[in-house]
Amino acid sequence: MKDIQHLVNSDFSKMEQRNRTRLINSLSGFKSINLCGTVSKDGVTNLSLISSVVHIGANPALMGFIMRPVTVRRDTYNNILETGHYTFNHLNAEIYKKAHQTSARYPIDVSEFEAAELTEIFSDTIKAPYVAESHVRIGLSFTQKIPIPLNDTVLMIGKVVEIFFPKTALTEDGYLDIAAAGSITSSGLDAYHRTQKLARLSYAKTDKQIKVI
Amino acid sequence: MKDIQHLVNSDFSKMEQRNRTRLINSLSGFKSINLCGTVSKDGVTNLSLISSVVHIGANPALMGFIMRPVTVRRDTYNNILETGHYTFNHLNAEIYKKAHQTSARYPIDVSEFEAAELTEIFSDTIKAPYVAESHVRIGLSFTQKIPIPLNDTVLMIGKVVEIFFPKTALTEDGYLDIAAAGSITSSGLDAYHRTQKLARLSYAKTDKQIKVI
Repeated sequence: MKDIQHLVNSDFSKMEQRNRTRLINSLSGFKSINLCGTVSKDGVTNLSLISSVVHIGANPALMGFIMRPVTVRRDTYNNILETGHYTFNHLNAEIYKKAHQTSARYPIDVSEFEAAELTEIFSDTIKAPYVAESHVRIGLSFTQKIPIPLNDTVLMIGKVVEIFFPKTALTEDGYLDIAAAGSITSSGLDAYHRTQKLARLSYAKTDKQIKVI
Repeated sequence: MKDIQHLVNSDFSKMEQRNRTRLINSLSGFKSINLCGTVSKDGVTNLSLISSVVHIGANPALMGFIMRPVTVRRDTYNNILETGHYTFNHLNAEIYKKAHQTSARYPIDVSEFEAAELTEIFSDTIKAPYVAESHVRIGLSFTQKIPIPLNDTVLMIGKVVEIFFPKTALTEDGYLDIAAAGSITSSGLDAYHRTQKLARLSYAKTDKQIKVI
């Protein structure tokens, strides 16, 4: 297809810094974009936009995300360490602009729920708040932080303790149809995308043709 | 929206194991799905499907992925450690079925390129093969592996040394429009999705309204 551009490390080193950041952030592909809900020990709720959520394991059910360097105030990080709980809330097309707004640098005593006009709800299981407008909501118990010394980021790992999702989105074999639940994806630093299912494919075997399931 | 289902940890512990695995794998949201290209020290090329690629940092340009426990033969893992190089190749709608086929357990002396009828190409920079049919291709130099003792997985981190992409997909401000490049996303263990851009949004500030850019 089309003309292919080839850049090597020294080329992107020469790019204007923000443009370089946008380019490198685009490379990993489409991202899982979630609002992370936490609460401080003083009871101030917080939301932050996290695009690095990654599946770590199914049994035990573990999820991770990359925390940026804690060289500035990071409410999400502090709240997770203080309370031990946090939530992931999938974005959908109705709330992505409000969700994006939560990435502004609000003072420590302002709740991003209020600032972005999103509704906080709580469960009986954990302390952290959920986003009522999100259709797929996950409650996590903080388990381990693993430093990444290369650039002072931190891999934060939590155990899934409860989940909420639209009943109709769960298929018979356990697959949760997050597209049917309205979840969206992101790319780069600031782009949001709906999705459209191509297919689910059968388990791959060396001696069988892949089938659409 | 709709009826909401609530499951707690003890509920999904009771699920049939494969169904539970499908459900937990669906929770993290849409995934960056890439074909990882490597070559063994004996010159056998390899492809594996990786849905856990995550942005680690832009300067230096670092990307990570989660390697499953090395309790069985893992050609990708061994090849990366032996040669120091690997490639990420975005999936697109034309090749996702072939890409899915590479996840079958081929013998060590069989190249998944041949088995799945994908075309290997090489650059002058690194030893690892690229997938010619992929439109966004990233060459990496292995940098560090970080064990995750919780479940014996490993966070593999590499430095981006070169990239290939369609010239027309790079926007003026550095954002690479991976949807325009044809890249797709995945969810769960076996679902693939096209995307459709909702919008790019302006940098969020506390005192300004978000704008579509």
